[in-house]
Amino acid sequence: MKDRPLILVTNDDGISAPGLIHLAAIASRFGRVVVVAPDKPQSGMGHAITINSTLRLHETSYHNAEMEFACTGTPVDCVKMAVNHLLKQKPDLVLSGINHGSNSSINVIYSGTMSAAVEGALEGAKSIGFSLCDYSLHADFAQATPFLEQIIEHTLLNDLPKGVCLNVNIPKLQTNQIKGIKVVRQANAIWHEKFDERQDPYGRNYYWLTGEFVNFEPKAIDTDEWALQNNYISVVPVHTDLTAHFALQNLKTLEK
Amino acid sequence: MKDRPLILVTNDDGISAPGLIHLAAIASRFGRVVVVAPDKPQSGMGHAITINSTLRLHETSYHNAEMEFACTGTPVDCVKMAVNHLLKQKPDLVLSGINHGSNSSINVIYSGTMSAAVEGALEGAKSIGFSLCDYSLHADFAQATPFLEQIIEHTLLNDLPKGVCLNVNIPKLQTNQIKGIKVVRQANAIWHEKFDERQDPYGRNYYWLTGEFVNFEPKAIDTDEWALQNNYISVVPVHTDLTAHFALQNLKTLEK
Repeated sequence: MKDRPLILVTNDDGISAPGLIHLAAIASRFGRVVVVAPDKPQSGMGHAITINSTLRLHETSYHNAEMEFACTGTPVDCVKMAVNHLLKQKPDLVLSGINHGSNSSINVIYSGTMSAAVEGALEGAKSIGFSLCDYSLHADFAQATPFLEQIIEHTLLNDLPKGVCLNVNIPKLQTNQIKGIKVVRQANAIWHEKFDERQDPYGRNYYWLTGEFVNFEPKAIDTDEWALQNNYISVVPVHTDLTAHFALQNLKTLEK
Repeated sequence: MKDRPLILVTNDDGISAPGLIHLAAIASRFGRVVVVAPDKPQSGMGHAITINSTLRLHETSYHNAEMEFACTGTPVDCVKMAVNHLLKQKPDLVLSGINHGSNSSINVIYSGTMSAAVEGALEGAKSIGFSLCDYSLHADFAQATPFLEQIIEHTLLNDLPKGVCLNVNIPKLQTNQIKGIKVVRQANAIWHEKFDERQDPYGRNYYWLTGEFVNFEPKAIDTDEWALQNNYISVVPVHTDLTAHFALQNLKTLEK
């Protein structure tokens, strides 16, 4: 079966996370699976890479994969390590997730799951990040399986523009409650942070970062937030050109 | 002088880095300065935030600022902590840097410096990240001062679109060798990684992430890489809508 696609599976919740085990199992129906994932939870790591310290790899056996390693680095390190060191070839597909919790709208820039998918696209592979809008340890990853299979199959059979990956978010619903898939744009939203201030036993302050999600365009029907609110799986094509092209012209006054 | 702008200064190289000291000094000519920066180097941290552990603040005195704190978190944590906890108001301007080393083109997504600037824009402030293309510990941050002052003044006096910040990269040149400022787009480039494999004294492998920068469009004259190669300071407006809008239509087949 040498023609089966080579699929790299990773995540940010760590090598033993239930969402990764579920995704690797789905992936094995489509091709040869290699898993390289962080050895510990790396949520909120964004596009961090490890340049001030070293990386290590440890072979594991959580998955039914051709090869699997836990890496001491970030999700992005895992993709770089898999593609450039372990495989020494571009995989046909990179799958990241399934994340415990949403990576819709602005969460895409904080998300280790999505940064791994973005790195897959930078490496030249087709690449998808999956997130389930359920933070519970007992989240049911199986409900969306038919839709995930549809998205993976579609991605293997069709071209994606170079450097573009997919950000797939799944509402917390039973299979028969999910209305379908919507291809949408990233909603304009932010987090309003609140710092939960506490005192340690020695009287010194410490802080937990918490926040409240604010969607600036709750009525816009072409966004990922709208799709999720209306029981659809959202698919946003994501790229890495962060240039605000619309702002270039007005700024030219800076050149004098 | 209550009408002087409130300027938050941060970086990713840490609270005592020479580039930060230089930037805070420049900032003090334009307004009241507050410095909140990481307590240790945080290069390559991208848009990472701290959600699995706690944060602490320590007052420091490296700068001539109204208020300054070292934070145990990432550059993005520093901005969130400054705006939402310490200041409890939006600063008029967020300045990040001056980074030791380039954050042009694709480096923007790996950069803690730029992620802090992006976070400033998400918080609703005008925001600029500065990077000097010189990794040396003895980098001369002073050469570009007149241009940095020009960019800061222009930003204070003119509107920036909501959510847009500036990515400013400075070539390693003497003042009189810098030809001026170019407002440009992010070049299409990537890093080709190589892992430097070594053995520890116990015979176990470990790895250093290294890489080679590849610019896919070296001749495009509207890019940051071209500007820097041609002795200009590059200014790229950066936003946080990662949607690949051009890819939306073709993907609609996924909705069936």
